[in-house]
Amino acid sequence: MTDTNTRHDGRAPDQLREVRLTRNWLDHAEGSVLIEFGRTRVLVAASFTEGVPRWLRGQGRGWVTSEYEMLPRSTNTRSDRESRKGRVGGRTHEISRLIGRSLRAIIDTKALGENTIVVDCDVLQADGGTRTASITGAYVALVDAVEDARGRGLITPNAAPLTGSVAAVSVGIVGGRPVLDLDYPEDSTAETDMNIVMTGDGRFVEVQGTAEGEPFDRTLLDALLELGTQGCATLTAAQQAALAEPARERVR
Amino acid sequence: MTDTNTRHDGRAPDQLREVRLTRNWLDHAEGSVLIEFGRTRVLVAASFTEGVPRWLRGQGRGWVTSEYEMLPRSTNTRSDRESRKGRVGGRTHEISRLIGRSLRAIIDTKALGENTIVVDCDVLQADGGTRTASITGAYVALVDAVEDARGRGLITPNAAPLTGSVAAVSVGIVGGRPVLDLDYPEDSTAETDMNIVMTGDGRFVEVQGTAEGEPFDRTLLDALLELGTQGCATLTAAQQAALAEPARERVR
Amino acid sequence: MTDTNTRHDGRAPDQLREVRLTRNWLDHAEGSVLIEFGRTRVLVAASFTEGVPRWLRGQGRGWVTSEYEMLPRSTNTRSDRESRKGRVGGRTHEISRLIGRSLRAIIDTKALGENTIVVDCDVLQADGGTRTASITGAYVALVDAVEDARGRGLITPNAAPLTGSVAAVSVGIVGGRPVLDLDYPEDSTAETDMNIVMTGDGRFVEVQGTAEGEPFDRTLLDALLELGTQGCATLTAAQQAALAEPARERVR
Amino acid sequence: MTDTNTRHDGRAPDQLREVRLTRNWLDHAEGSVLIEFGRTRVLVAASFTEGVPRWLRGQGRGWVTSEYEMLPRSTNTRSDRESRKGRVGGRTHEISRLIGRSLRAIIDTKALGENTIVVDCDVLQADGGTRTASITGAYVALVDAVEDARGRGLITPNAAPLTGSVAAVSVGIVGGRPVLDLDYPEDSTAETDMNIVMTGDGRFVEVQGTAEGEPFDRTLLDALLELGTQGCATLTAAQQAALAEPARERVR
Amino acid sequence: MTDTNTRHDGRAPDQLREVRLTRNWLDHAEGSVLIEFGRTRVLVAASFTEGVPRWLRGQGRGWVTSEYEMLPRSTNTRSDRESRKGRVGGRTHEISRLIGRSLRAIIDTKALGENTIVVDCDVLQADGGTRTASITGAYVALVDAVEDARGRGLITPNAAPLTGSVAAVSVGIVGGRPVLDLDYPEDSTAETDMNIVMTGDGRFVEVQGTAEGEPFDRTLLDALLELGTQGCATLTAAQQAALAEPARERVR
Amino acid sequence: MTDTNTRHDGRAPDQLREVRLTRNWLDHAEGSVLIEFGRTRVLVAASFTEGVPRWLRGQGRGWVTSEYEMLPRSTNTRSDRESRKGRVGGRTHEISRLIGRSLRAIIDTKALGENTIVVDCDVLQADGGTRTASITGAYVALVDAVEDARGRGLITPNAAPLTGSVAAVSVGIVGGRPVLDLDYPEDSTAETDMNIVMTGDGRFVEVQGTAEGEPFDRTLLDALLELGTQGCATLTAAQQAALAEPARERVR
Repeated sequence: MTDTNTRHDGRAPDQLREVRLTRNWLDHAEGSVLIEFGRTRVLVAASFTEGVPRWLRGQGRGWVTSEYEMLPRSTNTRSDRESRKGRVGGRTHEISRLIGRSLRAIIDTKALGENTIVVDCDVLQADGGTRTASITGAYVALVDAVEDARGRGLITPNAAPLTGSVAAVSVGIVGGRPVLDLDYPEDSTAETDMNIVMTGDGRFVEVQGTAEGEPFDRTLLDALLELGTQGCATLTAAQQAALAEPARERVR
Repeated sequence: MTDTNTRHDGRAPDQLREVRLTRNWLDHAEGSVLIEFGRTRVLVAASFTEGVPRWLRGQGRGWVTSEYEMLPRSTNTRSDRESRKGRVGGRTHEISRLIGRSLRAIIDTKALGENTIVVDCDVLQADGGTRTASITGAYVALVDAVEDARGRGLITPNAAPLTGSVAAVSVGIVGGRPVLDLDYPEDSTAETDMNIVMTGDGRFVEVQGTAEGEPFDRTLLDALLELGTQGCATLTAAQQAALAEPARERVR
Repeated sequence: MTDTNTRHDGRAPDQLREVRLTRNWLDHAEGSVLIEFGRTRVLVAASFTEGVPRWLRGQGRGWVTSEYEMLPRSTNTRSDRESRKGRVGGRTHEISRLIGRSLRAIIDTKALGENTIVVDCDVLQADGGTRTASITGAYVALVDAVEDARGRGLITPNAAPLTGSVAAVSVGIVGGRPVLDLDYPEDSTAETDMNIVMTGDGRFVEVQGTAEGEPFDRTLLDALLELGTQGCATLTAAQQAALAEPARERVR
Repeated sequence: MTDTNTRHDGRAPDQLREVRLTRNWLDHAEGSVLIEFGRTRVLVAASFTEGVPRWLRGQGRGWVTSEYEMLPRSTNTRSDRESRKGRVGGRTHEISRLIGRSLRAIIDTKALGENTIVVDCDVLQADGGTRTASITGAYVALVDAVEDARGRGLITPNAAPLTGSVAAVSVGIVGGRPVLDLDYPEDSTAETDMNIVMTGDGRFVEVQGTAEGEPFDRTLLDALLELGTQGCATLTAAQQAALAEPARERVR
Repeated sequence: MTDTNTRHDGRAPDQLREVRLTRNWLDHAEGSVLIEFGRTRVLVAASFTEGVPRWLRGQGRGWVTSEYEMLPRSTNTRSDRESRKGRVGGRTHEISRLIGRSLRAIIDTKALGENTIVVDCDVLQADGGTRTASITGAYVALVDAVEDARGRGLITPNAAPLTGSVAAVSVGIVGGRPVLDLDYPEDSTAETDMNIVMTGDGRFVEVQGTAEGEPFDRTLLDALLELGTQGCATLTAAQQAALAEPARERVR
Repeated sequence: MTDTNTRHDGRAPDQLREVRLTRNWLDHAEGSVLIEFGRTRVLVAASFTEGVPRWLRGQGRGWVTSEYEMLPRSTNTRSDRESRKGRVGGRTHEISRLIGRSLRAIIDTKALGENTIVVDCDVLQADGGTRTASITGAYVALVDAVEDARGRGLITPNAAPLTGSVAAVSVGIVGGRPVLDLDYPEDSTAETDMNIVMTGDGRFVEVQGTAEGEPFDRTLLDALLELGTQGCATLTAAQQAALAEPARERVR
């Protein structure tokens, strides 16, 4: 590998950062994961409750939603809390909605029954890719929350509320070259930034690409889609590995 | 054309709704357009003011931003006003940010000088595609606002703050088939919904695709990108035609 | 008529601006009007829904209310959106309440049944008299909404929820002289500004006069009341004319 | 006077309730009055501060404004606090603005210099007429605040910031008959309710009449204006009497 | 008593300011008191309503809560209203919660039945000790509200919803010396400030001590607890005296 | 030790839970600690920035403040986010203020220079004692932030902004018996709950005791003060031990 092919942190263009998934990091939550993409660290908690919001009652279907937020000092310089500002910012709303949609793509709400799962993604430390780490971690927490509920008899023994898996990764054009899984220094200088959410069987759930600088042509777009497809496949494998291991016992 | 190839309103899969652009619909705004995509009707006003927000001062650069909102009865059933709810919803924020980014992709902020243009996109009637109509209309209002400012000597005579044009269209998979420019009945039943923003020279500014139902594979994604590229080209031609005609005189 | 008797726009002291009423400007709303008083342009939408607010349930009576708001660039220089400020300003509240009261003066809530009509008045362009144009247009939209509901069997065939008509106009003292229907340049320099709301049979619903500069004596007050009475009569005739014509078919 | 001419509390149609003005009820405020119209009790505090709001700076003119609010248990049944609801209601805004405008009608802002007076009107007990009691008391507090500032050398010795006096009273049609100074039982059953603000020399500052029930004709309107004129004259005399007496010394 | 033992206002270290309790200051409220600790003046209104908040229904128990707020010009210089700021400040919340807890310490919610008492404490004038005056006055208003409800048959004749009395006082270290019932000049220079809430039988309900300057040792803490115990005993006597007298008749 | 002397988790009445302090848990923050009191887990981040709030400028003094918040699923059942509710609750405000005051008790703001330290305490998992864990951890994070700033030359080499150390613990009466460091099951059933904040040299900064059930007498109060004094001494030793070890290197 030559100099011109490595990135500022030594990674190859198609290389993810180190991914770590710690299941049951919390004791109260039905499912929880501390997920790390390099220095990015997100605490995901999936809360299972019986019943659904009023607008969904009586239809025999469940509901999965998500809320994303950053701790004030997750970032390089401290940001004001949204609770103190009295309103949730546009970016926070946007990412919360993205995570929720991504999870609902692999949920069979009928099989979930009239139950609600809220997935909280709180960024403890941010170094790029917080939304894709959130989605990737959220899937694992969701599996654990569903199994916990099944263990307590709240879900039919052989119901399959999860119809597949979902993972997400960012890709982008940095210094004219497509790269996978941007960290903050890359993200803040990228010409194009794209988030790709895919199912475990290789189909797209979300594709969100933005030209921050120069608009991009179809050739570059194809290269990004290729990188993202490959990154999601690797993350899917990491999710399966984490779920295959026995998780820490929750202290209750 | 056979039955199975037409849509509920008789359009071909790759056919836009009728597009109408009425320049200078307002008298006060430096640039304004009433843009219609079929029944969708958005009033776009571009307001030019000297000076920039505090965080940008003294850098010799200008600023372009946008705010999108829907009138309460633009929709089929009345929605509550966000001003009364005391907070702007996630969808509104998301679309406002998208429009602003799309316009900034074709703005040379140095050439704009320390001036600000706020582009208000108010949906008077909604029938699908309000964000893409907003972007497409916003470009025309922006041109008029820049020329008005140039006429008043607020922009250097041969400065070119606009480096190109921008237009947007929605594409989606409805009933298993890729279609262009979805109206509300199509949008609400689409399996996948994608918004594509492109420059007049055929490059991508934004690609936002979401699987509302079944995740989509690469083949369908390519078909959608193809349809969107073609739709944006047609809209670019409509923008150029509107700008080529003399606009109504504003009453001042 | 001598020079000293005409106004800055050539009108006589007792002359209204040109009034235009375009019914069914919207396709979704049960009743809608684009009303123009000269350059002032208000989009009025009357939304009919079955049921009443919780506090009114079970009394066999309906409810009519109104919300008024200005688009940010309806004014000469852009104003901030109230939705972004997170609160509705005092003036907006005040005018919304005035419109609602004015309409309720001619509504028989018993005859309306347990139904609600919300009348949204959104100012697309402001040049003085936006609240009086709103009220005048709202009456016409209300008639259309009631007839639409009657056509759908939601109101008893021979019930008469409207007990009369209502119209409004501004009067004021400009340059020491009473004038009718002030536009923005007049309004902003008026010594006294008064809004008069009257029924079609010539009785008062609201009289709101404010000395912006010098307090006014009883003689001037009488002159203003006289002008307003005459202006409302003319507007009543314009409303009846608009309602006598067949309206554009709504596209549904 | 016969039975049919007296009201539920024994007053004649043209009779005010007992009016009490207690100056310097507070020790900190530059001017303050506890004003009572029968059981209605408003605590008015006029706060004088050097300097003006940013938008008025450097013009050599001062500013007078007002804020009105009701204590939660001023009313017959407890109302929620607007601070807890997180927003100020329309009625509160409306009355605050009315009081401010009424005071500014008798203020020479040039003579006031670059100083600000905020007049807080807090309703301790409400029994109808709280806005008119507020205005009537506010004038007295304003005089005391101006004289206090003059005593401290903050206003030029022979400047006359107050160009006259102002008082206010409500009138209305109750049981078909015009009456003066409505208490709550009358106000809540009035067909028409009108607030009249007048200067000490008998000119109108504000006239705000609303038909709560039946619209009113010109004859009734004239009768109401007559009653209000007479009531304001009586209140002007009460203000002058209160100001003629030595006020309680403030404890500082 | 020597110079060094007296305070800036001539009081001995263990001396309260003059305490005045005026019952039934309001006509509408079921119980009300104007309580004065020297220049500090708080209007307390206890509102009795049948029923309890939703979360408490069906348990046969009542609810007592409190809201505290300062009028804008209660303070030496005017403060902004919390209603206008759109949010209740931390200090206001803290004191409201303290008052509520203090009252609930002497309430037998079973004996109260499913009824709610809201105690509003509005500071008309502030000179230190507003929270302790509020608690001390609130007890008296509470007694009157309970007796009013008993008189109307809303409480069982021989139920005893009040299990004791409660009073509060501030103590602090000023100039190195423990003193009782600090006024504003003392409070703002105190090294330590402590609020003590006690029952009439001499037990503690709340102890809240804060070192504003130097931390304090156990010896000083003991001295403060001693002073507070004594002050509360005196206030308990004042409450009993006020309740022993016949109160002014409310005008209804 | 007999059965009757142990608690539900086997601790002696005067025994703390296991305390763990992990310094530099975050990479961006100038000082950070993950502090654990048993299952209670608080992430503390101390952010050092040059400059002070506007109201403090030019006085040569610094500022230390704190914000406390709980993650939605830190608790046994999920709580709504305060950012979504649009307002910060009373309890959150109260605790934030307590932490800030506690830290300022050991800060020499002159020695800090015109710099600001914001200490964020975010509760990742709650099991009682979150505010006392926050204070105890905050001191350690503060030391690290000050030393980091000193290392970067932002604080004078031999300035001593910290005049001592501070730690906090809860004590309470559970089942009639005074106990130290209550966990959630104890806290929710305690008759009296008290938080004690002390300096490393054994003096009091805050004493906040509340009778949740029965009021407490002086004897019990003395026992609680004794337990708290001893608990704070142990925590002070734990802080010193943590600071004596080399901390993990932050990855920057």
